Amino acid sequence: MGTSNRRGRAPSPEAVAGNGLLNRRALLGQGIALAGAIGVGGATGAAAEPLKDESWSLAFGEITPALQAPSRFEKNVTRALSNPEGEFRNSHARTPHQLLNGTVTPNSLHFSINHCGIPDIDPAKHKLVIHGMVRQPLEFTLETLSRYPLVTRPHFVECAGNSAGMFSNEPIQTTAGLLHGLVSNSEWTGVPLSTLLDEAGIDPKAKWLVAEGGDAQHLDRSIPVKKAYDDALVAIYQNGERLMPGNGYPMRLLVPGYQGNMNVKFLHRLKAVDQPAYTYFETKNYSQILPGGKTWRFHFLMEVKSFITFPSFGQHLKEPGFYAISGVAYSGAGRIARVMVSADGGKSWGEAALQGPVHDKAFTRFVMPWRWDGGPAVLQSRAWDEAGNVQPLRAEFVAMRGETKKPVPSPLAFPNQHYNSITSWGISDKGEIAHVYA
Amino acid sequence: MGTSNRRGRAPSPEAVAGNGLLNRRALLGQGIALAGAIGVGGATGAAAEPLKDESWSLAFGEITPALQAPSRFEKNVTRALSNPEGEFRNSHARTPHQLLNGTVTPNSLHFSINHCGIPDIDPAKHKLVIHGMVRQPLEFTLETLSRYPLVTRPHFVECAGNSAGMFSNEPIQTTAGLLHGLVSNSEWTGVPLSTLLDEAGIDPKAKWLVAEGGDAQHLDRSIPVKKAYDDALVAIYQNGERLMPGNGYPMRLLVPGYQGNMNVKFLHRLKAVDQPAYTYFETKNYSQILPGGKTWRFHFLMEVKSFITFPSFGQHLKEPGFYAISGVAYSGAGRIARVMVSADGGKSWGEAALQGPVHDKAFTRFVMPWRWDGGPAVLQSRAWDEAGNVQPLRAEFVAMRGETKKPVPSPLAFPNQHYNSITSWGISDKGEIAHVYA
Repeated sequence: MGTSNRRGRAPSPEAVAGNGLLNRRALLGQGIALAGAIGVGGATGAAAEPLKDESWSLAFGEITPALQAPSRFEKNVTRALSNPEGEFRNSHARTPHQLLNGTVTPNSLHFSINHCGIPDIDPAKHKLVIHGMVRQPLEFTLETLSRYPLVTRPHFVECAGNSAGMFSNEPIQTTAGLLHGLVSNSEWTGVPLSTLLDEAGIDPKAKWLVAEGGDAQHLDRSIPVKKAYDDALVAIYQNGERLMPGNGYPMRLLVPGYQGNMNVKFLHRLKAVDQPAYTYFETKNYSQILPGGKTWRFHFLMEVKSFITFPSFGQHLKEPGFYAISGVAYSGAGRIARVMVSADGGKSWGEAALQGPVHDKAFTRFVMPWRWDGGPAVLQSRAWDEAGNVQPLRAEFVAMRGETKKPVPSPLAFPNQHYNSITSWGISDKGEIAHVYA
Repeated sequence: MGTSNRRGRAPSPEAVAGNGLLNRRALLGQGIALAGAIGVGGATGAAAEPLKDESWSLAFGEITPALQAPSRFEKNVTRALSNPEGEFRNSHARTPHQLLNGTVTPNSLHFSINHCGIPDIDPAKHKLVIHGMVRQPLEFTLETLSRYPLVTRPHFVECAGNSAGMFSNEPIQTTAGLLHGLVSNSEWTGVPLSTLLDEAGIDPKAKWLVAEGGDAQHLDRSIPVKKAYDDALVAIYQNGERLMPGNGYPMRLLVPGYQGNMNVKFLHRLKAVDQPAYTYFETKNYSQILPGGKTWRFHFLMEVKSFITFPSFGQHLKEPGFYAISGVAYSGAGRIARVMVSADGGKSWGEAALQGPVHDKAFTRFVMPWRWDGGPAVLQSRAWDEAGNVQPLRAEFVAMRGETKKPVPSPLAFPNQHYNSITSWGISDKGEIAHVYA
């Protein structure tokens, strides 16, 4: 037995920023002692049958099921629930980002917020009606929508209240999923809303659509007609299969990059109008109060953002050495252009590698090579989008948007939405990971 | 109530091929009577509360679960099983393509073939060893691999025996999933195999890797070292989460575009050697016998292919009118360049729209607008890849590769692999759909 085998012939990749950040070229795996492989034997024969005495290699295995499910060893990979008993109030289910990788959020783990429980909708009875300022009101079923030309695109959906805990003036000690789990990313397939509006013959004077869900709450939001024509869909598949009930089965509105609540689930009505409807969710619940008492009304776009998922709170670095820092970045304004990573709390930054393909208004996975020397470190990521927007530093963000102290003064008078500043993970010399502000 | 509302102001899109195929521009939805929307009311108010008496809009809904699952109305969306009782032989679980859309196959529905059941592997005990012609044999655990730089890419995996039923001299009357369900498409995340081989210091004289699984069968295949360096991964995540047991938990080899069996699941050993190992699965089970008695040995690449998923066997066209024909195309040789569709059994062809982004060795969804006039039609698709390969017509393919008649003479003497010719769906004047040869 030995430790990692360092290749002799290639040069060491240069550091690009303080505290062990390496040039992205190190990801090609050349010239660095990597991530903790164990050398075995002197003779190759010693490794010939390493698993011969494990129980699963000695007997016929389990039955192949009609629907696969994760291994029992992954039973901790679930959404975190705010209301597990289904009490008469809203429920949040958060995606466990610290346990995932890549860019797709499996449907079973996509975040879901339900203000009124999850309706059990019979798709044969559900209808979508487009009416109001149109030449001919139209009614669609799941079956008729399925005959339309469908488009397929990856997009994130993020609740405006995602990361609300980051407004606290003390860093909350919890996981990436509990902090940021109200954003997820899927491949969506649906009918371009422009196709349906054209068919109904929308009046050029109609500037808004009031979108309403078919659940008991009849959740409604005003959607700009311009957005409907830009890239909105009536989504009927998510990651290849029908939507799951908590994500809007049998159909939902998808307004890519706009706050999650506007992506109205169980969509049953689009009314073309010339004024926004000033509904509960756009005048009270998602009207962010700003320092000074003004509010952001009709502030829809989810800003450029990133966070590190590995290493992060709840994980542990066993030993000094090579690690690939990994996280997700996304922007409601377009594609991610660049992600910078710091290992010294923002004193110096190195550019991370983006895992292509980079899609519009979708998760981009970034990776940054890092050699941890065993000392304290503070890991941060900061994203830029193709429109030139940049994730603000925390001090800048707090100055603009405020923060909260316990006890919170009033449920309406504090900032809790559109947090898109930086997340910092502090690494101790024992490899323990804390949420810190830096 | 009325029928579809035809917009008056736009011209009709021209036909591009016989029997109702329309120019791809029709997918923009302008100038065509679309897919069966129903006009409602004369006054917009009539449509104002179309769902008020449905039960799910009158009561608080279901509890939000930790793991979401599909609606009970989608309980027919499962894999088809060849061995549902888990008898002591192999098991096939096929993806129900006729019920899916987009390009991602959900993990629950990814195809799986298990020759020896599914092992219940404890990831804390499972090891991957790289040995043989290397400077330093190395041992990896799931935990150490997780520290490496990971890459994320969409790729299909297809069993060499997918579509074997298409060799029958009579068209088998069954669904797209039962015919072609041994191919699926996922976003895979893993460590480039080149990184691990470099770290072990592979001998330049080693030309093959013998990859072996950790299940009871210890399934093994010979993999060219060149492929390992081109684009092979040791995959540890699939669609964002850990692999499911039937797809190789906790780690599998991924050799994009090569026959499925080579993507060794439960990967526990890679031995670098200078000769292929001539294992069971490369000399018997996946050595296709050709007309004349020769065999294809080490014929790895899965050829360019496409099939229509809608409309397809088991579905039904209710009425004449607009339909969007939809299907998947893929090639082990690269990106899909073009898909042509015919509605008259191959007499004439029109070019389908490819749903971007088009990825290397991955599903591409194609869509073709079609106005069904209510008469007989035969729908076909034919794909080209960026390397210039084209899906052969059936007559060409049968001449090259042969076909089978019942009773099949011997389990070894008939062609049953690498079918990549065309699938034809015959539409009757009642809208019924049969599998036909044309």
